Amino acid sequence: MSWLTISPDSHFSIANIPFGIISTSSDATKRPAVAIGDYALDLKAFASGGGFSASSEIQKHQDVFAAESLNDFAALGRSFHRSAREYLQSIFSADTKHPQILKDNEQLKKTALLKRADVQNHLPLNIGDYTDFYAGKNHAYNVGVLFRGPDNALQPNYTHLPVAYHGRASSVVVSGTPLHRPWGQILKDPKAEPKIPTLSPCQRLDLELEMGMFICRENKLGSPIPVDEAENYIFGYVLMNDWSARDIQAWEYIPLGPFTAKNMGTAISAWVVLADALNNSRTAGIPNDNTLLPYLQEKKKDNCLNIHLEVDVTTAKGNKTTISRSNSKNLLWSWPQMIAHHTITGCNLRPGDLLGSGTITGDKPGSEGSILEQTQGGKVAVKLQGGEERKFFEDGDTVTIRGWAGEQGALIGFGEVSGTILPAQPLF
Amino acid sequence: MSWLTISPDSHFSIANIPFGIISTSSDATKRPAVAIGDYALDLKAFASGGGFSASSEIQKHQDVFAAESLNDFAALGRSFHRSAREYLQSIFSADTKHPQILKDNEQLKKTALLKRADVQNHLPLNIGDYTDFYAGKNHAYNVGVLFRGPDNALQPNYTHLPVAYHGRASSVVVSGTPLHRPWGQILKDPKAEPKIPTLSPCQRLDLELEMGMFICRENKLGSPIPVDEAENYIFGYVLMNDWSARDIQAWEYIPLGPFTAKNMGTAISAWVVLADALNNSRTAGIPNDNTLLPYLQEKKKDNCLNIHLEVDVTTAKGNKTTISRSNSKNLLWSWPQMIAHHTITGCNLRPGDLLGSGTITGDKPGSEGSILEQTQGGKVAVKLQGGEERKFFEDGDTVTIRGWAGEQGALIGFGEVSGTILPAQPLF
Repeated sequence: MSWLTISPDSHFSIANIPFGIISTSSDATKRPAVAIGDYALDLKAFASGGGFSASSEIQKHQDVFAAESLNDFAALGRSFHRSAREYLQSIFSADTKHPQILKDNEQLKKTALLKRADVQNHLPLNIGDYTDFYAGKNHAYNVGVLFRGPDNALQPNYTHLPVAYHGRASSVVVSGTPLHRPWGQILKDPKAEPKIPTLSPCQRLDLELEMGMFICRENKLGSPIPVDEAENYIFGYVLMNDWSARDIQAWEYIPLGPFTAKNMGTAISAWVVLADALNNSRTAGIPNDNTLLPYLQEKKKDNCLNIHLEVDVTTAKGNKTTISRSNSKNLLWSWPQMIAHHTITGCNLRPGDLLGSGTITGDKPGSEGSILEQTQGGKVAVKLQGGEERKFFEDGDTVTIRGWAGEQGALIGFGEVSGTILPAQPLF
Repeated sequence: MSWLTISPDSHFSIANIPFGIISTSSDATKRPAVAIGDYALDLKAFASGGGFSASSEIQKHQDVFAAESLNDFAALGRSFHRSAREYLQSIFSADTKHPQILKDNEQLKKTALLKRADVQNHLPLNIGDYTDFYAGKNHAYNVGVLFRGPDNALQPNYTHLPVAYHGRASSVVVSGTPLHRPWGQILKDPKAEPKIPTLSPCQRLDLELEMGMFICRENKLGSPIPVDEAENYIFGYVLMNDWSARDIQAWEYIPLGPFTAKNMGTAISAWVVLADALNNSRTAGIPNDNTLLPYLQEKKKDNCLNIHLEVDVTTAKGNKTTISRSNSKNLLWSWPQMIAHHTITGCNLRPGDLLGSGTITGDKPGSEGSILEQTQGGKVAVKLQGGEERKFFEDGDTVTIRGWAGEQGALIGFGEVSGTILPAQPLF
């Protein structure tokens, strides 16, 4: 319980304390903050107002809260994140031992405790590299059926290693950033021969419902991370919408994988939920019947997360429909397994790197993480409120992913990642 | 002609003036420099010693020469790079109008003009994103024949768009960095069923002979770069060895492309040759018989580069063999076409981004840009000096790529990118 009034359905209960980067209309400086209830605690203002004076350990490093990204904070490591989160929980606690720091400090409340509605969010970390996995087995199977039929839906490697590809870091954007419908090369009739592409605005624009994991620690180039040590490299998690241009992807992706179909924008939620905040939401993922190679065998069997996920579409006419309900446990590979595999050949991770889960689809209709699956490749329209329907997204559609763990009154929520599709811009 | 003694076979003639980042044993600070003959001119020391006093334009921005990477210099744009290069050429010219600046300034020569043998090179730019193209048509054809036979060697999209994939930026290293043979998942017998992988040190370690291009200018997310304006985004070029683990790649790359087979290390040469330095080395690439979509049609037909490329292998026994002689003009797609395609869906490039050409193989035996091609997939050994031979690289082998344009006495050279393969390290 907090002395601050927090609605029981707030994603940002005192049990959460997620970190982000904000600015305000009166101060455009980007700076760290935590979300709590309807508020954002500006950590730069909090630190300079003596907010961390009850912890010499945190105060010693409080310069990280004056930085323009969370990279420096992340790089201090898991035990520091834990201390900082627990300290802030103690400050907001109804029975705080330090009421003079914030609860009874009207001056600091005025400068540091801001209405979230009044702050602008920015990317929480400077992303060095972004990698997207393909660990959502139900998604991989559904897409495989569409492309190759049920007998060859999953490739032979799929259950032996976490398939992934390197993504584009520069075009990762924070929730709220609109996306212009991209132009690209497509085949208007994929079956016509010879195959002559057209330059066109994407006709099959899709979302991918994913979770993203931020890395907080560097491994040396050439030194793989053991799977049972991988947890120490996890800063926290965000929701992710990996916008995908399906028609562009289908034409370009052979033989080296997706390129321009995926590099026009990947959106993430603004507040990073720390790995520690999700300790009570750990769960097993989808079982893997293979005997795994030792570097992928985990001692802990609960390295996936139990996070409820929902996708809303709001059309230009204002009709809002929840088109999908899924859960982040629908992964064949755990987060530590992704880290272990990513580094097995020696690849170095760095604080700020972002690893996506791949599209998270559940095991029944209505839990699809992409429109491609839900419409069976654009064949069966999804029914929306108000009599509207969609095979793929249209201009003016707003796609919103929400996600949360925990119970009413103590939700560990992610807020949302939301983006509106704007019409294609004239080329040149 | 320069007042400095420069060997006529130096890659770093006064016609060149490539930029890099150095440190020395007496000063570990990373700082910009240019290479000339056997020397490196420390630009930080040169600037603070009044070296740019004859150009108010450069002096105004000389802070960029106190940075630890070339990103800030690059971001000043093509006309500034041109001014800086021409200014430094005028300072080194035998008939310099400003002999007091360096030629006759023993103090500044002592602090700023360093023996290249005494400096340590570092990555020239902080690389935001690294993209690897596949524009070497002869390579794509040869590899396609190995995998799919001559009738389907090139995929239908190959001549319509520059195929590429996103690479790993964190593991790009500077020439001289050794590579431990990577561990990874491989199929010991790719034809056996069922397919059960083994964790093993890579058995088919390969080079890829490439050129890399650094970007100097940002485009806005959502705004493609027109092909005829793309030149303004090019900072300069380096040699590149995109180390590749062929056995790991073959198992993992379906359906999303190469991942761990390519993320353990990509090596580049230390000195960035400015785009302007290669103005006299422009040439057409491999002709494309297709009618290209308008966004890929160039007004200029000489947007490839005429750079001689050679690959040496030096074994642990000391036998050195030039195994390949190629030329960077063996590309189906020009550098501006790569930029135009990279951004067509709206992807934003940033100063410091690195774009690789893909493997550059010529049109005859002995010009292959990879061992995979030269040995026909590991079947026919390459003969080396001293009676040695290789199907793939062995521990202790040093692979060196050299490249240069221009003529004796006025070479525009890249120096080399070199790396030694060390044995696999014990896992964990």
